Amino acid sequence: MKDSLLHPDRFFDPDPQVRGCARDVYRHIKDLPIVCPHGHVDPRLLAFNKPFPDPAELFIIPDHYLFRMLYSQGTPLEELGIPTSDGSVVERDHRKIWQRFADNFYLFKGTPTSMWLQYEFTEVFGITEKLTRGNASHLYDILQEKIDSPEFLPRALYERFNIEVLSTTDGPSDTLEFHREIRESGWKGRVLPCFRPDVLFKVASTQWQGTIDSLQQVSGISVIDYKSFIAAIENRREFFKEMGAVSTDHGVEIPWTHEMTATEADSLFRRALSGTATAEDEALFTAHMLMEMARMSIDDGLTMQLHPGSYRNHNSAVFDRFGADKGCDIPVRTEFTRNLHALLNKYGNDSRLTLIVFTLDENTYSGELAPLAGVYPAMKLGPAWWFHDSLEGMIRYRERVTETAGFYNTVGFNDDTRAFASIPARHDLCRRVDANFLARQVCRHTITMDDAMSIARALTYDLVKKAYNV
Amino acid sequence: MKDSLLHPDRFFDPDPQVRGCARDVYRHIKDLPIVCPHGHVDPRLLAFNKPFPDPAELFIIPDHYLFRMLYSQGTPLEELGIPTSDGSVVERDHRKIWQRFADNFYLFKGTPTSMWLQYEFTEVFGITEKLTRGNASHLYDILQEKIDSPEFLPRALYERFNIEVLSTTDGPSDTLEFHREIRESGWKGRVLPCFRPDVLFKVASTQWQGTIDSLQQVSGISVIDYKSFIAAIENRREFFKEMGAVSTDHGVEIPWTHEMTATEADSLFRRALSGTATAEDEALFTAHMLMEMARMSIDDGLTMQLHPGSYRNHNSAVFDRFGADKGCDIPVRTEFTRNLHALLNKYGNDSRLTLIVFTLDENTYSGELAPLAGVYPAMKLGPAWWFHDSLEGMIRYRERVTETAGFYNTVGFNDDTRAFASIPARHDLCRRVDANFLARQVCRHTITMDDAMSIARALTYDLVKKAYNV
Amino acid sequence: MKDSLLHPDRFFDPDPQVRGCARDVYRHIKDLPIVCPHGHVDPRLLAFNKPFPDPAELFIIPDHYLFRMLYSQGTPLEELGIPTSDGSVVERDHRKIWQRFADNFYLFKGTPTSMWLQYEFTEVFGITEKLTRGNASHLYDILQEKIDSPEFLPRALYERFNIEVLSTTDGPSDTLEFHREIRESGWKGRVLPCFRPDVLFKVASTQWQGTIDSLQQVSGISVIDYKSFIAAIENRREFFKEMGAVSTDHGVEIPWTHEMTATEADSLFRRALSGTATAEDEALFTAHMLMEMARMSIDDGLTMQLHPGSYRNHNSAVFDRFGADKGCDIPVRTEFTRNLHALLNKYGNDSRLTLIVFTLDENTYSGELAPLAGVYPAMKLGPAWWFHDSLEGMIRYRERVTETAGFYNTVGFNDDTRAFASIPARHDLCRRVDANFLARQVCRHTITMDDAMSIARALTYDLVKKAYNV
Repeated sequence: MKDSLLHPDRFFDPDPQVRGCARDVYRHIKDLPIVCPHGHVDPRLLAFNKPFPDPAELFIIPDHYLFRMLYSQGTPLEELGIPTSDGSVVERDHRKIWQRFADNFYLFKGTPTSMWLQYEFTEVFGITEKLTRGNASHLYDILQEKIDSPEFLPRALYERFNIEVLSTTDGPSDTLEFHREIRESGWKGRVLPCFRPDVLFKVASTQWQGTIDSLQQVSGISVIDYKSFIAAIENRREFFKEMGAVSTDHGVEIPWTHEMTATEADSLFRRALSGTATAEDEALFTAHMLMEMARMSIDDGLTMQLHPGSYRNHNSAVFDRFGADKGCDIPVRTEFTRNLHALLNKYGNDSRLTLIVFTLDENTYSGELAPLAGVYPAMKLGPAWWFHDSLEGMIRYRERVTETAGFYNTVGFNDDTRAFASIPARHDLCRRVDANFLARQVCRHTITMDDAMSIARALTYDLVKKAYNV
Repeated sequence: MKDSLLHPDRFFDPDPQVRGCARDVYRHIKDLPIVCPHGHVDPRLLAFNKPFPDPAELFIIPDHYLFRMLYSQGTPLEELGIPTSDGSVVERDHRKIWQRFADNFYLFKGTPTSMWLQYEFTEVFGITEKLTRGNASHLYDILQEKIDSPEFLPRALYERFNIEVLSTTDGPSDTLEFHREIRESGWKGRVLPCFRPDVLFKVASTQWQGTIDSLQQVSGISVIDYKSFIAAIENRREFFKEMGAVSTDHGVEIPWTHEMTATEADSLFRRALSGTATAEDEALFTAHMLMEMARMSIDDGLTMQLHPGSYRNHNSAVFDRFGADKGCDIPVRTEFTRNLHALLNKYGNDSRLTLIVFTLDENTYSGELAPLAGVYPAMKLGPAWWFHDSLEGMIRYRERVTETAGFYNTVGFNDDTRAFASIPARHDLCRRVDANFLARQVCRHTITMDDAMSIARALTYDLVKKAYNV
Repeated sequence: MKDSLLHPDRFFDPDPQVRGCARDVYRHIKDLPIVCPHGHVDPRLLAFNKPFPDPAELFIIPDHYLFRMLYSQGTPLEELGIPTSDGSVVERDHRKIWQRFADNFYLFKGTPTSMWLQYEFTEVFGITEKLTRGNASHLYDILQEKIDSPEFLPRALYERFNIEVLSTTDGPSDTLEFHREIRESGWKGRVLPCFRPDVLFKVASTQWQGTIDSLQQVSGISVIDYKSFIAAIENRREFFKEMGAVSTDHGVEIPWTHEMTATEADSLFRRALSGTATAEDEALFTAHMLMEMARMSIDDGLTMQLHPGSYRNHNSAVFDRFGADKGCDIPVRTEFTRNLHALLNKYGNDSRLTLIVFTLDENTYSGELAPLAGVYPAMKLGPAWWFHDSLEGMIRYRERVTETAGFYNTVGFNDDTRAFASIPARHDLCRRVDANFLARQVCRHTITMDDAMSIARALTYDLVKKAYNV
């Protein structure tokens, strides 16, 4: 039992009754297609369908979960080949990077990164040895050989992973040319864009005018006041929808919602255009635009996702040298009951809206999010997110959410990943955790085995398809 | 194992050792009388002792736990027969309502509502089939026949449930005529009122003057200043006590306590009488009146209950159309250490006071509430409340509270329910969870089986009787 | 199984697989030396090496965990012999105190106090009976006889406990004469001071000038401005280091960090010297001095410990009569992401700094602390602290911290105790909880048994030695 690389009963409770039952439930769902309604895979990957360059580029350099841990224990990011913003030189020897990673692989014991990687090595790449300091270079060669072969091209993996649909996340002025390229290539994979307009609401940012310029360019609409700004956004949403989008996504630090009058909004927007908007203006405008996004979603049917509570780029030294998304986004406490009041009161009773709310603050599961989702028809709960997308994190999510919101006010899993090869590993972990959670319930006689089977299928497949209209 | 309707080992851990031990502990307490020191049963039910009208009126229409879930998944409240504030017509065909409920019964899987209802159907009403879309109408008939029979009259159920005492919750100017009627009827059931004066403290509300008018009327005291207001409240507390009350109850959004001088209080109160009190006045006055309530409790011996942290009527559309208590009260974060400082400093060392504190914010269990209850003689912890009165919620409560406050600074269970027929189901769930919690401890050798037995009895019966003086 | 005094499998999960594995892991670490890098043992105990006076003085009078619980259930502190600030008489009959404790011993069921005491009675003092009302006096005699014998002198216990190093916590102007006495006595025990300068930062306190006077005296530096203040602190840190100190400790209510300019700091400091500093000044100065402490730690290598979030002396009546540290410190919510931003940005990327952060607010484990420790090289997480240093508290800590921070960004256990005889009991509880936590992981196949062994050793011994340089 103790030293297998990837145990068939992994993640299940050791109790024989629960384990037996979890196995049965898991068997029922493990081969269902993978639906990825939210994530950060680069569409160029599937548009170009080129081989991954090497193991370091595949596993380490794009994965902030991974290199932040090595950094926390003293390995400079330069030594891991993380590209700098100013282009100054970092480690170029990718085999050396791989060796550094192998030397420190023990740091990941007990973390989801370790669980995902073990799956990827074993199930995706067929490695039968554990990665050690000693065999790192040898495994590098084996991996390199695999990823150079046609079976490991991105599209081949997409098919092997049994992905039914994959959503990317895209800027509001993105031309979606790679999505178009995929569509027109004749390849049957379904890769959808998602409209994420955050940058357009940051009216106090020095980059904001640039984002408006881009918006004008791609929409063909002169953004000269609030009204034309709204028109341009509606134009983009329409374009995204034509290109297959089924959802929008909104990342905010505080999920405050508040409606301004048209006059107030216009006045604020003109201040922004003149370059004098303040941080308070930005907060207010963001709160207002979330209301607008809900309104538009009711019109165009795009599912609205809200991802609040991340203090971005907390570590200025890392941000200045390496840029965003380098593992230095840290959660802050988040309040939902009061902050979502305006939006839910105006739009929450409208079943045409699907608002999926995520949180980085687990403390809101049972007291705020489940009660809100348990009464507003429009609101649903996104799965355990980011730091909480983990074995224990997902257990806590189900334990705290289910008793008030039930299973059917949740929307299944999403992997939210940039790391393409980790997709099946992440879904497998979630399926196992769900199977085990249901098995615990069966063995405590709160649901029947039949219930467990149908709920498992809903959590894996039905609910996500319904919530995102895919 | 898997498909029994109501398994004898339900809610117990599957581990055979824990389960065996839980069974023994549960057997020791399952037949103890039910003490209901806090709840919302309508006293008319037991005063009139009329049959429940029909299954929809019994199970669905008064239970916001239940219809909020159906509403969250798109069923209009009108279709469930929830009465509107303006009396506009809603579904009148109660068999149809029942069918809608049966069609959507799967939504409750994994929730306490499902666990309670299964108990009620099986144990209270002797139904041996699971409710399905197909047999809904048939079960409706069976239930109707039962509730029309004398054994299912409210007083008969009270006796069958083995209820020893049942407290209602009543407005400060309530005449308690139905409590009197019960007392004078010769029936041996013990139904007590509880004094809940919240409305009297809402000095900024447009309804406030009306509540003062009622107060004057029932007390016979002219409320012309702060002093006469206090006298009128003391008068009412005395009346409630004569009518059997053993407790008061206080629902506030924020449990802030703060003592004003008599002059300040009088000045604020006069502002209120003149109709110019502000929201800030109301917050301050409420903080002050909580202090006064503690002072009076020391005088008259009524146990003081504090239920903070509910944002009432969050969904305005539902409130406007259907009124209060429709499942749209949502918890907010609650702070106790600083907010209760004034009250605990003035009265918390006085053993004559029993202040029972509840919370909707589980995050305060281990860090604030248990440490406070673990040192102040007056303060005790109420059981897991509302959204947290559930299998997992009660486990979290015990796990986070016990290690600092012990078992003996808690006060047993209360059902807090409006749904009369659910009372034994709720107490049974709690008894099983407590038995299982203690069994886990026995099996980890932190307490002995003898300890478990005596603690179980305390949690079920002794502590509640002591805390409420019943 | 059920009535043994100290079961060999205590605290382990009942599941046979987990239990068997936990046993193996525990066996691997149970005899490792005890490292105590943070605590509150009085150094005079080991300098004088006199017998403990009697069982009440040993177990009850100095242990606020213990007497606060008795107090919460109505026993006056006077009756427990707790000395008053004004020297007014309290219970002098220590046998009576012991009897009161025995009468109420049931209150501790399910608490760590009960688990620790059971260990102390059985393992340290060889008592084979359970303490009851009936045998209290008899056990008092047995205990008295033991503590009067040479094998129970403090130094003998230190050796028997297999303590490798023990840190005390000391005021900034402490002469450390008892530490010196221990060093010069020729005894091989290693007892180190820890520099805790909190009082020096409380510029608004009426006692502050007195602490500055002491600082001047011991440092020989005239503290006339901010610069000389800093010089005096650096002087004291150097002295502490010479006396063996490896760490500093900082207790603040809010862990706010903020750097003032030298001019601002000097101006504030002069205001303090003139006796006109405000509470706001104190908060600002504390925030600034935490930055200074980090800077100095980079220079002198002392590990920096931060213990925030305790509202000290919440119960004024107890504080006025009995003084500080009487069980009336209550946790408050604590925010880390924003509060630590300044310090971590300036010093958090510097591997020369070790900043160990503790919390009384469990709600920050997964969302704030683990993500911060999981990226900043300087930051590590202290173990579950105070109210959370318990069976369930430590499980929650590992479950919420490990998946983001891993095991290696934590620093092992510390007992933080004033109760010398409880040291092995506390470490044993932690070793068992860690063993069981790892066993659960092995049985869910997320780590191997080999991993568990090496992690267990790291958590028990290696990490604490590294974090504190001992």
